[in-house]
Amino acid sequence: MEMGTGNNDNNIGYMSRSLMWLKGLSDKMKDKVIEFVNMTIKLATDDIRRVIHSIKVGLALTIVSLFYYFQALYNSFGVSAMWAVMTVVVVFEFSVGATLGKGLNRALATFVAGALGVGAHHLAVKSGNTGEPILLGIFVFLLAASTTFARFFPKVKARYDYGMLIFILTFCLVSVSGFRNDDILELAHKRLSTILIGASACLIVSICVCPVWAGEDLQNLVSLNIEKLASFLEGFGEEYFKTSEEENPKGEKAFLTGYKSVLNSKSNEETLANFAKWEPGHGRFMYRHPWKHYLIVASLSRECAYRIDALNSHLSSRIQMNEEVGSKLEDICTKISLESSKAMQELASAIKTMIIPSSSTSHITNLKESAENLQCLLKYELWKDVEFLQVIQVVTVTSILIEIVVCVEKIANSVHELAGIAKFKNKKDHPKSNNVSKEKSKAESSKVGILPDHEVVVTVKD
Amino acid sequence: MEMGTGNNDNNIGYMSRSLMWLKGLSDKMKDKVIEFVNMTIKLATDDIRRVIHSIKVGLALTIVSLFYYFQALYNSFGVSAMWAVMTVVVVFEFSVGATLGKGLNRALATFVAGALGVGAHHLAVKSGNTGEPILLGIFVFLLAASTTFARFFPKVKARYDYGMLIFILTFCLVSVSGFRNDDILELAHKRLSTILIGASACLIVSICVCPVWAGEDLQNLVSLNIEKLASFLEGFGEEYFKTSEEENPKGEKAFLTGYKSVLNSKSNEETLANFAKWEPGHGRFMYRHPWKHYLIVASLSRECAYRIDALNSHLSSRIQMNEEVGSKLEDICTKISLESSKAMQELASAIKTMIIPSSSTSHITNLKESAENLQCLLKYELWKDVEFLQVIQVVTVTSILIEIVVCVEKIANSVHELAGIAKFKNKKDHPKSNNVSKEKSKAESSKVGILPDHEVVVTVKD
Repeated sequence: MEMGTGNNDNNIGYMSRSLMWLKGLSDKMKDKVIEFVNMTIKLATDDIRRVIHSIKVGLALTIVSLFYYFQALYNSFGVSAMWAVMTVVVVFEFSVGATLGKGLNRALATFVAGALGVGAHHLAVKSGNTGEPILLGIFVFLLAASTTFARFFPKVKARYDYGMLIFILTFCLVSVSGFRNDDILELAHKRLSTILIGASACLIVSICVCPVWAGEDLQNLVSLNIEKLASFLEGFGEEYFKTSEEENPKGEKAFLTGYKSVLNSKSNEETLANFAKWEPGHGRFMYRHPWKHYLIVASLSRECAYRIDALNSHLSSRIQMNEEVGSKLEDICTKISLESSKAMQELASAIKTMIIPSSSTSHITNLKESAENLQCLLKYELWKDVEFLQVIQVVTVTSILIEIVVCVEKIANSVHELAGIAKFKNKKDHPKSNNVSKEKSKAESSKVGILPDHEVVVTVKD
Repeated sequence: MEMGTGNNDNNIGYMSRSLMWLKGLSDKMKDKVIEFVNMTIKLATDDIRRVIHSIKVGLALTIVSLFYYFQALYNSFGVSAMWAVMTVVVVFEFSVGATLGKGLNRALATFVAGALGVGAHHLAVKSGNTGEPILLGIFVFLLAASTTFARFFPKVKARYDYGMLIFILTFCLVSVSGFRNDDILELAHKRLSTILIGASACLIVSICVCPVWAGEDLQNLVSLNIEKLASFLEGFGEEYFKTSEEENPKGEKAFLTGYKSVLNSKSNEETLANFAKWEPGHGRFMYRHPWKHYLIVASLSRECAYRIDALNSHLSSRIQMNEEVGSKLEDICTKISLESSKAMQELASAIKTMIIPSSSTSHITNLKESAENLQCLLKYELWKDVEFLQVIQVVTVTSILIEIVVCVEKIANSVHELAGIAKFKNKKDHPKSNNVSKEKSKAESSKVGILPDHEVVVTVKD
């Protein structure tokens, strides 16, 4: 009896544990599903073009695979028509440039390798039945090894990597197939035509349905990166000089960490520039748009981001000094960071809108003036009644600020250069703003660096 | 007569111009060829594994394509045997991890997509002759669109991007082929087997012939990056304090620019870590080696590189101050940079050799001591008879040096953590060095950060 109860208890215990375990499992599953759904929604809403791209791929594939059902196309290509489908799958990329680059690479490499393959096959056939596989083997080995090595050349890697791959693939396909199949010319011809069909389908869908231009993405990325730096600088003054009461230790503000993505954006920018080079002229961009120059601007912004990173590491330490000097210092530092921020914002929007930046020159002049004022202040007034560690703090932060001013000037120069090469419009030519004075447009066209260092200081307008 | 001479002159002039042009062209060609040869030699000698890799690809391809000539294999697979060749071309990558990752992705995706494709085909067949292409079209659209979207998930993108591509490809191939071909099960089966043959050939050649392990590359890269920082710091003291006579304006020294590649190494490291995760245990690495932790060390070294970049921008400006203070300052700064360099070198070699760093702890203690001495020196002695701009210079440089000391400490801590997780060996366990005292090995196992700040200062040995 007792044992029976014990068993029952055990059973109940076991069942309740099982139920608990099952509940735990289902809760975990629920969490996973919710997480997945949230992630999906975030990915889709962050960039709606991702959804559109997915639909475009589905569309292109369906169109090409439907071709397969048509008797006419099937009759002329047979099973090879499947290569058109394959081409769509591997060639369709997110941006027009990437798709075009891959499609051209694939088509050109197939053409050259097909011709070479046919040649190799004819050579091999002449050497008799035993010699044929040996000669073909040697050809395949030499071509594969040399082409694989060619893929290590940086220029080839950047633009023709995929072409090299397809070159080896098609050569093997054509030359080796020749051993079993005498219609090798037909094979090469079919492969090339089906690939052309697939690549054209990709390009048509890619360009006609909500095109994503890598060049535009590059432009936006470079502009956004500068904006991120600007928003750090905009908030910096206030954040650094705020009194301890206002401090909000928990909420690390977004503008203070936004610049961090700029530090590691190099490979992304280079990829986009490589894709952009493939793109035909479109919208505001002509064919040979100076994409390389965007990389120069980007690399200067990255240098500025390194300085900002150094500045950020000093944000946690506050300075306390006598009120008079402190407030003077606060004024100038805040002015410098605000003015830098404004100049950067102007440059960012100039890159985005492709209008020559009109007021960045005056911002930079202000900046230089302020930087000099800051140095004077430090020189004559700062050292009275200030503890030494504070001095180190102040000098470090201010000298980083001065370095940032230099960076901003460099960025401004490179943007002005870009504006010249890429033929940015003048603001007055732009339909939206006809009320710009002559004096301003004169300042626009002159490069920032050539201006004399000490011009009249224009007061900051908000 | 006159005209004739004129014509002759013209002809001679034309011919000589043509000859000049031809000569110029051939010179240009020669230059191009020489440049190409030099580039090839440089690529090959910089990393001989590139040549070996090319030969390996040729070898694997030749082996697999030779299979095609054997009657037996051709009889069982027919033209599909070509897929084995294709698989070798697209799957064979530079490192074992990349090859394994791509091969597994391809095989697994083919298996799943093949099964799904057969299922879709059977469903479509049931819906009659008109319904079949419509239903197939809908299937292809839905699967292609959803899988393409899945490729945007960061985790999928990092490890399964290629698998997703092959998943779409195989599904289309199998389901669409079914419309014209009833042996669809055989098609799916053939595709899977040929891909398995190709992938296995890649893996066997990749692992058996001079394998390139991505994990080892990652380890070497992280170690090399720290070494580059170390060699900057080693040369910094001397470079900064040298008198103007010794200056050598033309020769920008290699150690002063070597660190720059560290600034942008993130994407490279992440790719290698992703490949390394695929690799089986080999040599000193077990299967689940903590590759992620190498990324942490790498990111801390990058932070240090940002500071070094800031330091580098001050190299051009020399300081001039009274001799006594100047030489004291020189002593301490040089000591800090040398000691940091030694600590970094020790850490770099610890990562490379997988032996717990033995003396980095004492270097760090020295560093902290020196940093404090530096602050004291600045506090009490520096400001006499020194021009203000010099003070700014000195304070900035020294405070960056102090920040670098913090970075070095962080790197040391993360390397010690890595040593714990990855089970680095003790130096005394290592056959080469049995003469390590007990005291030292005690220091080895303790983490740097927990040590008291003011320990006995060990003098620097060269």
